[in-house]
Amino acid sequence: MAQKPSIPKGTRDFGPEQMSKRNYIFDTIRSVFKLYGFQPIETPAMENLSTLMGKYGEEGDKLLFKVLNSGDFTKKVSDEDFSQRHIPKLTNKVSEKGLRYDLTVPFARYVVQHRNEISFPFKRFQIQPVWRADRPQRGRYREFYQCDVDVVGSDSLMNEVELIQIVDEVYHRLGINTVIKLNNRKVLAGIAETIGAADRIIDITVAIDKLDKIGLENVNKELVEKGIAEEAVEKLQPILMLSGSNEEKLSQIEMVIAASEVGMKGVEELREIFSYLTHFDLDVEVELDLTLARGLNYYTGAIFEVKAKDAVMGSITGGGRYDDLTGIFGLKDVSGVGISFGADRIYDVMESLDLFPKESITTTQVFFVNFGKAEENYCLPILSKLRKAGISSEIFGTSAKMKKQMTYANAKGIPFVVLVGESEMEAGMVTLKNMESGEQKQITPEQLVEVLSSK
Amino acid sequence: MAQKPSIPKGTRDFGPEQMSKRNYIFDTIRSVFKLYGFQPIETPAMENLSTLMGKYGEEGDKLLFKVLNSGDFTKKVSDEDFSQRHIPKLTNKVSEKGLRYDLTVPFARYVVQHRNEISFPFKRFQIQPVWRADRPQRGRYREFYQCDVDVVGSDSLMNEVELIQIVDEVYHRLGINTVIKLNNRKVLAGIAETIGAADRIIDITVAIDKLDKIGLENVNKELVEKGIAEEAVEKLQPILMLSGSNEEKLSQIEMVIAASEVGMKGVEELREIFSYLTHFDLDVEVELDLTLARGLNYYTGAIFEVKAKDAVMGSITGGGRYDDLTGIFGLKDVSGVGISFGADRIYDVMESLDLFPKESITTTQVFFVNFGKAEENYCLPILSKLRKAGISSEIFGTSAKMKKQMTYANAKGIPFVVLVGESEMEAGMVTLKNMESGEQKQITPEQLVEVLSSK
Repeated sequence: MAQKPSIPKGTRDFGPEQMSKRNYIFDTIRSVFKLYGFQPIETPAMENLSTLMGKYGEEGDKLLFKVLNSGDFTKKVSDEDFSQRHIPKLTNKVSEKGLRYDLTVPFARYVVQHRNEISFPFKRFQIQPVWRADRPQRGRYREFYQCDVDVVGSDSLMNEVELIQIVDEVYHRLGINTVIKLNNRKVLAGIAETIGAADRIIDITVAIDKLDKIGLENVNKELVEKGIAEEAVEKLQPILMLSGSNEEKLSQIEMVIAASEVGMKGVEELREIFSYLTHFDLDVEVELDLTLARGLNYYTGAIFEVKAKDAVMGSITGGGRYDDLTGIFGLKDVSGVGISFGADRIYDVMESLDLFPKESITTTQVFFVNFGKAEENYCLPILSKLRKAGISSEIFGTSAKMKKQMTYANAKGIPFVVLVGESEMEAGMVTLKNMESGEQKQITPEQLVEVLSSK
Repeated sequence: MAQKPSIPKGTRDFGPEQMSKRNYIFDTIRSVFKLYGFQPIETPAMENLSTLMGKYGEEGDKLLFKVLNSGDFTKKVSDEDFSQRHIPKLTNKVSEKGLRYDLTVPFARYVVQHRNEISFPFKRFQIQPVWRADRPQRGRYREFYQCDVDVVGSDSLMNEVELIQIVDEVYHRLGINTVIKLNNRKVLAGIAETIGAADRIIDITVAIDKLDKIGLENVNKELVEKGIAEEAVEKLQPILMLSGSNEEKLSQIEMVIAASEVGMKGVEELREIFSYLTHFDLDVEVELDLTLARGLNYYTGAIFEVKAKDAVMGSITGGGRYDDLTGIFGLKDVSGVGISFGADRIYDVMESLDLFPKESITTTQVFFVNFGKAEENYCLPILSKLRKAGISSEIFGTSAKMKKQMTYANAKGIPFVVLVGESEMEAGMVTLKNMESGEQKQITPEQLVEVLSSK
């Protein structure tokens, strides 16, 4: 029986044109990563569940795709176990592996597992798909690529600076105007200390993180609901409203949190980063945003978020410094810093602003119409010469109707067509047609190679 | 608690050097595919199990990795169902999706699902990982890449010829000496007809397929065990032993199977392919091998297999023509032909023959030793200039001990090191050290960019 074919919800097929555009993004990001001395690694799609579980919170555990054990997957489950329907417990017995949920945890696992082969600081990038059993919606998929770049084993702030330069260079090449929002978790800790709620730093950052989405009033409401003293929330207000240049903001916050050692360390780090940046001529605007918090709890220093200025879209790149990511796998005191580029959002921004250059859509450069056996024999060696010269070329497999062949060439967006009939064969020539201008001319096969090589 | 990190058996991590070498293979294959007018597509890692099940035989169904349904995966399973432990039935109730097992079935699904967007003949390639719950062993993994190239919607034999040219060009570029074994399923059908066992074509091809591995005597034994008449097996012997040039073999087989219409069609197809090949100057040897059968039952015309001449290794590329692959998804009469490159085996062949060019291992081109804050400030703008010129460069994040910094540069295989101390700063120069020759010279920053650009 014929089945009506489909793919799982939240997943996608990519056709040739989408592939060209996606590869244009990936290739751009990859070359910039390499320019800064980062090297690629890849990890398996499946990780042991023991590696993944508990790393993304309770919600994350649920959103992991789990792989059923091979063979008799019921063998560890008694009928009684089953009848209790305790899902996490049963899952644990029928499944040992899961699909990776991000690239950060597999990277931490990689660093620990291969620590004796790695020379630190380890500058790696990784461009691979991840899977999440999230409810699919516009712009949110169950399979999507992440492009991560991290340095581990170095606490030099120059790494933060290089990541900012990488962001600048990537978006410069892609033609997207961006602003980088920068903050520091130590400053946030200093603020929490200053307002007398040092132990509530997580609740405070989670609430502040929503400022953009829900507004100041609702943030305050949430803080109070979470049990932060009204007095502390009051003290927080001027900090959330700070304005002016980066240096002005730094000076103001410095006065407010002067008594907090960790807070002052954060200010110092931010100053050092801004000082480094004066060496470089950046397109991107780097803006100190003291309300930037980022949800993830493993950040301990700088945090970044990048927005496209000319498009309505959440952050297209983000990251920060973490001081103990590998600790969960038994390797303590390895500081790292990294960012992740969101390929799907970048794609959508570029589509909406029409930023993909025409050349990014790669296709066959020249198509030979097939008029019959004799013409084919005449054309095949020419085709070989073109390919030897690195020119992507093809000929129709049969001498089908001209219209059918031209429809094929058009659908594929091929810019040049070669026509060879009796007169061309007699003269030892070919006719080259420019599909955009419609212009046609007879030239020799050698000229054909030359003309197309220069395109 | 710290866990000792590991990855699932049969899967692999790839570090920077392996990635460079693997990408060298993938990039080579990809550029040749493009040269012949093939375009990339990608399909999701997960497919619906209804797409995958029943396509790879009973054994294949077992080797599919199945993904546990999200949420309460037990909800379709009654306690009674469970207690019966009927694994395929239970699997069906707890799992709807599986990881792709090859690229052929997802491609067939893609073609049918997108048939209205595709202009046929559709020339696509696809380079993605596949997953099989096979018992892992040397050279066999549970996650590995396939590189498939197919044309569907054309029965021109020129496609077969182009695939041979692609094989030739790929292995020419990789520096591997190869032989392509070529046969035709129609000829095998003709042989089965001729020996009076037309209905036993599958058993016959399965047995012949093992000739290389188990020898003639055991093939004969298997044929008899499968119930092929001794007389038929007898008649088969001279065919299996045919020798001489391709044309000599064709002439001999032609006489033997002259009465079989399908067999003669196969001979004609082979002749046409060989005739096409006279137009091209190929490195690869194309050898007619009438004992080549290939296990997969969907082949209906030409079948190919490629072996490396200088390495002990099974086939490194294989494929053939299939006339009704999309039929299972409801699209009839779409003929296609394709081949698949085995990246892991190619990698092993290249390692064993030391064929990876030094340039294929990409790393940072120049490393700046960091001697302190003043030197750093002097170096940063130079570093920016190098990167603007497309030269991959890095500086150590801190002024660590010289030995530590040089160890880092060495471990990463960086060919050039820049040293800047007080004397260089005063003179407005840098010292460039060639790490291979040990040679050192003082040059200006402008000369540095020039020297490294020309490398």
